Amino acid sequence: MAPHRVRVAALAPEMALGPREARHLHVLRLREGDPLRVFDGRGAEAEATLTLLDDLRAVLTLGERLNGTAETPQPVTLAVALLKGDKLADVVRAATELGAARVQLLVTRHADAREIGTQKLLRLRRVAEEASKQSRRTVTPEVLAPLPLADLSWEGTLFVAQPGAAARLTDHLTWNAPVTVLTGPEGGLSEAEVAGLTAKGAVAVTLGPRILRAETAPVALLGALVATGV
Amino acid sequence: MAPHRVRVAALAPEMALGPREARHLHVLRLREGDPLRVFDGRGAEAEATLTLLDDLRAVLTLGERLNGTAETPQPVTLAVALLKGDKLADVVRAATELGAARVQLLVTRHADAREIGTQKLLRLRRVAEEASKQSRRTVTPEVLAPLPLADLSWEGTLFVAQPGAAARLTDHLTWNAPVTVLTGPEGGLSEAEVAGLTAKGAVAVTLGPRILRAETAPVALLGALVATGV
Repeated sequence: MAPHRVRVAALAPEMALGPREARHLHVLRLREGDPLRVFDGRGAEAEATLTLLDDLRAVLTLGERLNGTAETPQPVTLAVALLKGDKLADVVRAATELGAARVQLLVTRHADAREIGTQKLLRLRRVAEEASKQSRRTVTPEVLAPLPLADLSWEGTLFVAQPGAAARLTDHLTWNAPVTVLTGPEGGLSEAEVAGLTAKGAVAVTLGPRILRAETAPVALLGALVATGV
Repeated sequence: MAPHRVRVAALAPEMALGPREARHLHVLRLREGDPLRVFDGRGAEAEATLTLLDDLRAVLTLGERLNGTAETPQPVTLAVALLKGDKLADVVRAATELGAARVQLLVTRHADAREIGTQKLLRLRRVAEEASKQSRRTVTPEVLAPLPLADLSWEGTLFVAQPGAAARLTDHLTWNAPVTVLTGPEGGLSEAEVAGLTAKGAVAVTLGPRILRAETAPVALLGALVATGV
């Protein structure tokens, strides 16, 4: 069984954890001397040993550093319209498993929601952190507060999922530059929004002739990326 | 706004609907003379007119037949291990949007669940029907009762998602033959299970170096299929 993974603020020769994480290690029946893994959520991961565990704290001693291998060769950003209810949590969870380095929330013309509360944004960040642990990533994707679509900028290539588009993601995808994939709200992006993006160099790509729910499209697009083996 | 789509047993010059569907048409504020679409769940779709609507029934008159364009060029089967809780419903819903013609449930060695109750199977079939309407498909995917993995047979190519596999779906995918994609339970397929499949000609393919939840892998694989434009 793989060692338990613990997120720490930064790798250091000795790393102290607070009561909450100490309790969690108790629940897992870990004891002093047991091996663990530590990761900092920004790409660094290492072996570690639990050298002290009591009710109030745990201390870990750093072991060998590991090469993170779970990251894509170029960072992937998912830019996704605000969605209603708990759909964004599902999207953030899947996007984390599928290797996204960043999730940028967007306000679009046909919006299912116009804003997101602070609590909900913090919850999305916790979802990303939890999913990064479960998928064995050393990077926790950032979840960025919503931007108006017109203010979105990107490096590399932006692919926008658009019903009826002729281009295929797989024909345009190289891993020589960062990748952003963008999906709209339940009502879709407006024609003007898509035109504005393509005028700035975005590539509108197909996901087939069916109507996808707003929460399925990002998983499908990111799935197409990871099916290239990254 | 697109006309409301109604599933019928078969296309016919006059088609009668029962009280439940009649109530639904009332709720949608449809009136006699309004245009509708009818589809039979097996690929046929046509325009229709609501010619009678009362509390007990509705009658539709057949109009022009439409060419279904929402289907993949070859049938796609999703073969998926039984999963706990409501995860299979999420998978069936997304698979329907992503064009699967059939969902074959599987019993695997590391099984999250060993069987599925009749009620739950019927619910999955309702989910497929509902999702086919929403995604504007004329075909409702069949959801087939579980088979032991060893009893699975397939036509064309079977792709099995396997952590650490070197092959890429997109390098092996042609649309010259039916496609089956297969994903395992939360604990993964056993090595013997994967070896048994590849011995029969299956291709083990990668979805990247991260650990995916059992309910994310099928959506990612089917996403890679539809990103080819089908």
